[in-house]
Amino acid sequence: MTSARPKVVIVGAGFGGLAAARTLAKAPVDVTLIDKHNHHLFQPLLYQVATAALSPADIAGPIRAIVKDQANIRVVLDRVSGVDVAAKQVKLGAGRVDYDWLILATGARHSYFGRDEWAEHAPGLKTIDDATAVRRKVLLALERAEAETDPVRRRALLTFVVIGGGPTGVEMAGAIAELAHRSVSRDFRTITPHCSRVVLVDGGPRLLAGFPPDLSASAQRAVEGLGVEVRLNSPVTAIAQDHVQTGDARIATFTAVWAAGVAASPAGAWLGAACDRAGRVEVGDDLRAPGHAEIFVIGDTARCEGPNGALPGIAPVAKQQGRYAAQVIVAALSGRAVRPFRYRHYGNLATIGRKRAVIDFGRLHVTGFAAWVLWSVAHVFFLVGFRNRFSVGLSLLWNYLTFARHARLITGEFSGEAGLGPPLQPAQ
Amino acid sequence: MTSARPKVVIVGAGFGGLAAARTLAKAPVDVTLIDKHNHHLFQPLLYQVATAALSPADIAGPIRAIVKDQANIRVVLDRVSGVDVAAKQVKLGAGRVDYDWLILATGARHSYFGRDEWAEHAPGLKTIDDATAVRRKVLLALERAEAETDPVRRRALLTFVVIGGGPTGVEMAGAIAELAHRSVSRDFRTITPHCSRVVLVDGGPRLLAGFPPDLSASAQRAVEGLGVEVRLNSPVTAIAQDHVQTGDARIATFTAVWAAGVAASPAGAWLGAACDRAGRVEVGDDLRAPGHAEIFVIGDTARCEGPNGALPGIAPVAKQQGRYAAQVIVAALSGRAVRPFRYRHYGNLATIGRKRAVIDFGRLHVTGFAAWVLWSVAHVFFLVGFRNRFSVGLSLLWNYLTFARHARLITGEFSGEAGLGPPLQPAQ
Repeated sequence: MTSARPKVVIVGAGFGGLAAARTLAKAPVDVTLIDKHNHHLFQPLLYQVATAALSPADIAGPIRAIVKDQANIRVVLDRVSGVDVAAKQVKLGAGRVDYDWLILATGARHSYFGRDEWAEHAPGLKTIDDATAVRRKVLLALERAEAETDPVRRRALLTFVVIGGGPTGVEMAGAIAELAHRSVSRDFRTITPHCSRVVLVDGGPRLLAGFPPDLSASAQRAVEGLGVEVRLNSPVTAIAQDHVQTGDARIATFTAVWAAGVAASPAGAWLGAACDRAGRVEVGDDLRAPGHAEIFVIGDTARCEGPNGALPGIAPVAKQQGRYAAQVIVAALSGRAVRPFRYRHYGNLATIGRKRAVIDFGRLHVTGFAAWVLWSVAHVFFLVGFRNRFSVGLSLLWNYLTFARHARLITGEFSGEAGLGPPLQPAQ
Repeated sequence: MTSARPKVVIVGAGFGGLAAARTLAKAPVDVTLIDKHNHHLFQPLLYQVATAALSPADIAGPIRAIVKDQANIRVVLDRVSGVDVAAKQVKLGAGRVDYDWLILATGARHSYFGRDEWAEHAPGLKTIDDATAVRRKVLLALERAEAETDPVRRRALLTFVVIGGGPTGVEMAGAIAELAHRSVSRDFRTITPHCSRVVLVDGGPRLLAGFPPDLSASAQRAVEGLGVEVRLNSPVTAIAQDHVQTGDARIATFTAVWAAGVAASPAGAWLGAACDRAGRVEVGDDLRAPGHAEIFVIGDTARCEGPNGALPGIAPVAKQQGRYAAQVIVAALSGRAVRPFRYRHYGNLATIGRKRAVIDFGRLHVTGFAAWVLWSVAHVFFLVGFRNRFSVGLSLLWNYLTFARHARLITGEFSGEAGLGPPLQPAQ
């Protein structure tokens, strides 16, 4: 397997890394694709796993299967611990991998703005394990509420707080509202649709801050229509096992979900590069790490200026950057240059519950059911793998028609002692 | 919710408990159905989850959703810690539940014949968490093998040992063989179909000891046709992280799966009743616990004599016993008696790989592809819930046509340190 072909190492098999790998399919290079998970994950639908509408395997596929027909690629399941830029090596748990070109597409994790102790009580949503942990938390709270006789505790058990009013928070709040108000109420004896309460809190003055104001207003009306209580201008000041505090208001809850902030993976620290406050490596319009022409940083890991400020951390940005980095490498091999990266924006979209969405196409704004249909088609279309597309398409249609949440499984051993403490935590 | 109606408590929502609950749907009783999981699990297809062909939600459904149209039932998610037969109460983690009639359908767990330290290295297959742990173990071994350069370790990583030649062991060995030999070999660069080795060991002289000898021989030919190495008369004497010992033979492996023995849940201890060696409560042909006319013990928890010795621990036995116990209760309420329980045997079946099975209909023995089709239809038919039937039917067909294993997800955090130790263990 030794060869004199240039070695391209891609770290991260998300949207950006995978786009880069695919663009290099026919190039005369040897590609090594490293990820700490064995699967590519369609993160935009993760909230559907967290609310039991889809199964993990519906929105994730083994990386090896996705690139199996690409002869020049090697997939490595390992955790990267650093980059030796002098030796041009990526450091793994076991050994090192040489590179001539390096593409860092390591994504982002939640950021609790320095309050890491909040993570225990308000899990975020970035991996499959995150999603099944949130699912477990939500479903266990409903089970506990069904058996609880004390009205104050019962009320707290049936209160769900989503922190952060961006697309993930809006989607999550809408989906929990539908789950709690509608999908499961028929299955419980003491929980009726009016018992449960979903609160969406945000520190800013409107939901979907990255969208135009009219779509923010439309999204707010839509989530409120689903029974979600929206609290704006309410930065969270404390999160504990049994409450969320925003300013003077204390919301009693055992189920908080974090959708408020992300921080880039430590790629910046690996390179010793300049980063912004969110930990993103500041790259120019060639997407190269400062001072390293052979290293690209893309997707959520990079801060790249667009015409209206930094490009957002969304899949289309990552995909276009992955393709661009691969094209630059291919061009460089034949001595050509490539024009600077320019992001083509097709639109922003967020879905609200089972049949509403808002889409920002720039001058055209679409809301309501038509937007939901467009959202569904786009998401199913962009899923990797025909089987997943088929399965998710069917599941979305099925859930739409029946309100069912077929994946309502509480996994992890149930440590059924009295009280609320341990059983409401995610599985260890 | 207080009433003077008799209280029936059912512990366990497996095949037996659910059959009892459904039979009581129209009866003038109040039913409490207690389970430590929130879902009913179709255990016969659990090996398909362990080998990544199906998702957990395909073969499990929320208990509440299954019985939601039954007005006289209350579902409780809790772990039973004992029975107070004098006070007629079931003890839960939080509180107690009164009963007039009690049906214990608590199933079985693996038994390591007193060698509980083997559990760590050779997980069994009874719950969804068991199945995803085995899936993780098998898939991580393949990932490790792909990167391993030492040929001896590599060989051990690609050796899979299934312990126990009953239906579960045969099904598991066939499915692992197809996964390792065929489904994934295209996805790896250094693993070819001939690299991996699946060994099925049993202490007895033939596979499927509960079946007629000609079907045992047929099953053995079929698994051997899939590349499985069958070792009979080989009782296991030691299991460690890196090997399985049978008599003088030491098989180097990092992936052993236990399908050799089960022990009943501790229901016998709760009652202080006489149990057989496998921990099953010895019941008569009225399925009542000795000395307690108001307590029934059914399914894998009971030892009930049939015409050819004790009835086997299979779904049809549990279902018929659950229905019978419910009928006895209904009859007793109107002062009627019921004839003794008689098990109606329809057939035994086991599947081998993607398109073979053996079925024992008594005088009629069916093998090969026809048996596989019958097996598929029967299993899809008996799944609870139309959505699951539809989804599993499609998945089985899809997998049959494509050899795909779409649910190949390694979940749980990857602790990618060097070496084989921790990463090959199931998620903590």
